[in-house]
Amino acid sequence: MLNTWDFISKLLPISQYLKDYNLNNALCDLLAGITVGLTLIPQVIAYASLAGLEPQIGLYSALCGGFIYAIFGTIPELNIAPTALLSLLTFQYVHNVTFGNTRAAIMLTFFAGVVELICGILHLGFLVDFVSTPVVSAFTSAGAITIASSQIKSLFGLNYKAESFINVWKQFFLHITGIQLWDTLLGLSCILILLLLRMVSKYGEAPTKNNRMSNKPSKSKQCIWYASVGRNAMVVVFSALMAFVFKFHKQTPFTLTSKVPSGFPNFSVPLQPIEANNGTNGTTISQMVAQLGYGIGVIPFVAILANVGIAKSFANGKVVDASQEMIAVGLSNIAGSFFGSFPVNASFSRAAVSSASGVRTPLSGIYTGIMVIMAFTFLTPYFSYIPKPALAAVIICAVVVMVDISITKSIWEGNRLDIVPFLVTFVACLISSIEVGILVGIFVEVCKLMYFTARPKVIIKQINVGQSYLRVTFTSSVFFSSAEHSREKILNYCLDEGRNIHIILLDCNRIFELDFTAGKCFESLVNELQTRQKYVAFLVSRSKTVKTLERCCTLKIDVFKNELEFITATQGKMLADNNETDAVYVSTQL
Amino acid sequence: MLNTWDFISKLLPISQYLKDYNLNNALCDLLAGITVGLTLIPQVIAYASLAGLEPQIGLYSALCGGFIYAIFGTIPELNIAPTALLSLLTFQYVHNVTFGNTRAAIMLTFFAGVVELICGILHLGFLVDFVSTPVVSAFTSAGAITIASSQIKSLFGLNYKAESFINVWKQFFLHITGIQLWDTLLGLSCILILLLLRMVSKYGEAPTKNNRMSNKPSKSKQCIWYASVGRNAMVVVFSALMAFVFKFHKQTPFTLTSKVPSGFPNFSVPLQPIEANNGTNGTTISQMVAQLGYGIGVIPFVAILANVGIAKSFANGKVVDASQEMIAVGLSNIAGSFFGSFPVNASFSRAAVSSASGVRTPLSGIYTGIMVIMAFTFLTPYFSYIPKPALAAVIICAVVVMVDISITKSIWEGNRLDIVPFLVTFVACLISSIEVGILVGIFVEVCKLMYFTARPKVIIKQINVGQSYLRVTFTSSVFFSSAEHSREKILNYCLDEGRNIHIILLDCNRIFELDFTAGKCFESLVNELQTRQKYVAFLVSRSKTVKTLERCCTLKIDVFKNELEFITATQGKMLADNNETDAVYVSTQL
Repeated sequence: MLNTWDFISKLLPISQYLKDYNLNNALCDLLAGITVGLTLIPQVIAYASLAGLEPQIGLYSALCGGFIYAIFGTIPELNIAPTALLSLLTFQYVHNVTFGNTRAAIMLTFFAGVVELICGILHLGFLVDFVSTPVVSAFTSAGAITIASSQIKSLFGLNYKAESFINVWKQFFLHITGIQLWDTLLGLSCILILLLLRMVSKYGEAPTKNNRMSNKPSKSKQCIWYASVGRNAMVVVFSALMAFVFKFHKQTPFTLTSKVPSGFPNFSVPLQPIEANNGTNGTTISQMVAQLGYGIGVIPFVAILANVGIAKSFANGKVVDASQEMIAVGLSNIAGSFFGSFPVNASFSRAAVSSASGVRTPLSGIYTGIMVIMAFTFLTPYFSYIPKPALAAVIICAVVVMVDISITKSIWEGNRLDIVPFLVTFVACLISSIEVGILVGIFVEVCKLMYFTARPKVIIKQINVGQSYLRVTFTSSVFFSSAEHSREKILNYCLDEGRNIHIILLDCNRIFELDFTAGKCFESLVNELQTRQKYVAFLVSRSKTVKTLERCCTLKIDVFKNELEFITATQGKMLADNNETDAVYVSTQL
Repeated sequence: MLNTWDFISKLLPISQYLKDYNLNNALCDLLAGITVGLTLIPQVIAYASLAGLEPQIGLYSALCGGFIYAIFGTIPELNIAPTALLSLLTFQYVHNVTFGNTRAAIMLTFFAGVVELICGILHLGFLVDFVSTPVVSAFTSAGAITIASSQIKSLFGLNYKAESFINVWKQFFLHITGIQLWDTLLGLSCILILLLLRMVSKYGEAPTKNNRMSNKPSKSKQCIWYASVGRNAMVVVFSALMAFVFKFHKQTPFTLTSKVPSGFPNFSVPLQPIEANNGTNGTTISQMVAQLGYGIGVIPFVAILANVGIAKSFANGKVVDASQEMIAVGLSNIAGSFFGSFPVNASFSRAAVSSASGVRTPLSGIYTGIMVIMAFTFLTPYFSYIPKPALAAVIICAVVVMVDISITKSIWEGNRLDIVPFLVTFVACLISSIEVGILVGIFVEVCKLMYFTARPKVIIKQINVGQSYLRVTFTSSVFFSSAEHSREKILNYCLDEGRNIHIILLDCNRIFELDFTAGKCFESLVNELQTRQKYVAFLVSRSKTVKTLERCCTLKIDVFKNELEFITATQGKMLADNNETDAVYVSTQL
C-alpha cells in the first residue's frame, strides 16, 4: 500500500503539493504565474518567428506545458514553453522539408516528446552527464550568437535568406545598403530600453519574494521590479501601439508581423500522411520522418540537457529527479503536438522571473496557461500590429545574456586542458551547426578521457626488508587502452640492466576492473619477467580481480592478500623495518 | 658523436647486425630466407588473385619488402610481402574503381606507405593499443572466414561475382549445380594434402633450429620438416605438373591461371593522372584518391595493427620499437609502389616458418628477395599451368588457422563483459566489412570504458575519533562523466536524515586528474552541504589538484595535507584511537 502511494507521489508530484496547498501558496503561485505570462507571451511570438513559423504557433506551443508540468513537474520555477535554442534548432530541421514546415515542426514535437518520455522511463538521464560543462557552455554561447545574428535582418528591416552564422553576416553586408531607417530606429531603441530595464532590475524588489521577512519592499522598488520583469511585454505593447497610431494615419513605417488568426488551436493527430490527390504526390509518414532526420534525436537531447541543467540550478541543493523531469517535458511535448505546438522546453530566463516572483509550487504553470489561452482568444487581432524589429529586439536581449565570456577565464584557471573542448565546440557550432558542435565537443572530451585512462599512474618503489623487492602499484583500473603501455614501462624499468632485484610484487589492490586485454598483458608481463629469472607475485584482495588474473594467465602465479603474507612467504621471516627508498614514478605521459 | 651513432643505429638497425655478422649467421639466414621463399612464392600468387589482380603483381609485391626490412627492420622473423587480410582489403577498395584496379592498388600501396611512415615518425604507434584483444581477434577470425569463403568458387570451378560473406554463400548455392568435377577433386585433394602436411609438422625438426645443441635432428625428422614447410610449393608445383601433362595430351580439365608476363617489373611513378585523349575523359590524381576513399586510412591501420602484433609475438620479451616497425613497413610499401606492388605487410605464417628455420637477423629477407627475383625472371612461363583450385586450397589452408574459436572460451572465462565487443565485431565484420567491424568494435570498447570511468568507486567511512566524521574517498580521478553521479550519491548519503554527522572530509588523494566539470561539481557539492550546516574539508596533497579545486570553487574551502592535521584542526586534540566503523560502499552501478 505504501509502495503504491510512493509510486504515485513520485510519478505525480502534484499529489504532494495538493496535500498542503493553502490560500497563501495559491496567491504566490498566481502572482508568479501571471508575471511569467507577461514575459512569456511576447517571447513565444518572437520565438515562433525565429523558428520560421506563424506567430500563433508560438502561443499554441505555450498552451500545454504549464498544465502538464503542474501535474508531473518537480521544480516550481520551471515553465515549459518555446525557448530560443530549441526554436533555432526547429528552424534548422523544418525549413527545408517538402511537406510544410508547420506540419514538420508539430511532428518533430511529437517525436521529441516520445524520445524524452522513453528516456525518462528508462532512466537514461545519466547520458547528459557525458556532456561536460565546457561543451554545454560553448554550445549555449554559440547558439545565442547564432540566434542574435539571425535577428539582425529583422532589426534593420532587411530581407534575405541565410541560415548559418557565417552566411547571415555575409548576406547582411551584401544587403547593408537596404537598411530601413524606421525599423532600425525602432529596433535599436527597443534594445536600449530592454537593456536599461534589465540593468535597473537589481534596484527593484519582488513583492512576495520573501514573505517571512516582516518589512515588505517599498512601492517604488516594487514598480521597478514589475517594469523590469514586464519589459518584454511593455516594449512589444508600446511599439504595437505606435504602429497602430501610424496605421490610423495611413502610414506603415515599420515591417509588421503577419496577420494572426484568432481562436483556440485545432485538436489534431500530429502524425498524418499527406494523401495523393489532383496529380500531386502524397507523402507517407516514413518519408516525413526521413526528412526530419537527426532532428528527432538532437531536439530531445538538447531539451533534456537544458532542462536537467536548469532544474539543477533551481533545485536549491535538492537532488533533481532527472527521469521525472524528462517524463514531464516529454508529456508536455506529446500533448502539445496535438494542439499544433513546436518543440518546447524550460527556459532559464522564465525560471529566473518565476523564482523572483516568489513561486511556491509548479501549479503556477496553470495560471500562466490560462493567460496564454486568454491571449490567443482575445488578443490575436492586435498581434498583427507588432513590428518585427521589436520582436527581434526581444529575442536579441533574451539571448545575449546566454553568451558567457567569463567562463573561458574560469575554465582557463581551473584546468587549462578544458579550454580545448570549449573552443572546438564553440567554433564548430558557429561554422557548422549546434548538433555538429555538440558531437565534436563530446568527441574531444572522450578523446581526452581515453588519453587519461590510457596513461594511468604506476608507482614503482624499491622496498628493502632484508632482501629487496620492487613494489609496482597500479593506481587505477587497467583496461585495454592502458595495458600495453603499462606493461612496457614496467618491463623497461624492471629489466633495467643496472637493477639486480629479482623479486617483483605487482600490487593490484586499487584495480577495480581488469578486462581481458589487460589480463593477457599481465600474462605476457609475467612471462617476460619469469624468462629473465625474476620472481613475480601479485598482491590482490578483491576476488573478482583474482579470478580474472588466474583465468587470463595460463602461467602459475602466486597471489597474496597482503604484503606481510608476501614478505613472510618470500623471505621466511617477519616484517622488519619497512625502509622505503627512492620512490620512482613511471612516466605517465607519452 | 655518440648521439649521432645512437640515432643511426636506431634508424638503421642493420648497422647493429652487420657489426657482428659472421658466416654462421649468414648460413642460418640463407637457409631461413630460402625456406620462407618457398612458402612465399605460391602464397603471393594466390593472394594476388584474392586481391583481384594478375599473378605477377603478387611477385612484384614480394620484391622490395625483404630488402627494405633487412635495412630498417628489427625483428629477424618478419617478412614483408602480401598477406591474406591486406589482399582482401585491397580487393574491397580497388575492384570498383574506374581507372584500373592494378593502378589503384599501386596508388593505395603508395599512400598506405606514406601514412605508415608518418605514423612511425610521429610515434603514433600507441594508437593501436586502443584496439583491444577481443576486437583484434574477432576481426582476424571474421576476415579469415570471409577470405576462405571467397575462395570457395575457385575451389569448385564456379564463376560468379560476389564480395560480401553473405553474398558469396548466396551465390554459391545459386550456382551449386555448375560445380566442375575435376576442379573440385583437385581442390579438395590439395586441401587434404596441405592439412595432412600441416599436422605432421610437429613430428619434424628444423635442421638449424638450435645449433647450440649438439644432437642434430635425424634425417627423417628433417625431411618431414621440409615437406611441411614447403607444402604450399609442393602442392602448387605438383598440380601444375599435372595440368602440364594433361595439356600435353590436349586436355584442360582444370581452370588454369591466366598467362603471366615474364621479366622484371617496370619502375614507374605510382601517382600519375590519366590524360584525356581520343574523346575519353582523363582522371586527375585527386579523383583517384576520392575513389580509393577510406582505404587510404584503413589499409595502413590494419597493417600497423597486424605488424606490431606479430612483432610482439616474435620479440621474445624484448620491447618492440613500434615506431621503427612502422617506418620499415612504410618504406617497404613506398618503395614497392614504384615496382607495381599492392599493399604489403608482415605475415604470421611466414614469421613462424622463418623462426622455425632458425633465422638470425633481418638480413635473411635479402635471400628471400633474391628468390622472388629468380621466380619472376625464370619461372613465369610455368605459372600459367597452375590450376586455380590449387591456389584456392593454399589460401584456404593459410587462413583457417587464423580462425580462433578457443579465444571465445578464454574471453568468457577471463572477463564475461569482453565477449560483447568480440561478438559485435565478429558479426559486423561478416555482415558488413572489416573496417566497419573494427570501428564498431572500437566504439563498443570506448562505451565500456566510458561506463567504467563514469561510475568510479567512492568509499564512505564513518570515522569516530572523539567526534565523528564521514570520510569520502574517491578511488580514482574524477572527470565530467563521473562528477555528477558521484556528487548525487555523496549528497544523498551525507544528507540522509538519520545521519547527524556534521563533519565531512573529502579525501582526494587518489585523484590524479580533475577536470573543470568535476571541479564545478565539487563546488556545488560543497555549497549544498554547507547550506545544510555541514562542515566540509578536503584532504589533498597534490598541488595540481589543490589548484584546480581552489580555482573552480569560488567558496571558501579548507584543504588539509593529511588526516591528522584535519583531526587536530577540527577537534583540537591529537589522534586518539582511530576506530573505523561500518564501511559503506556507495553503489558503483547505475
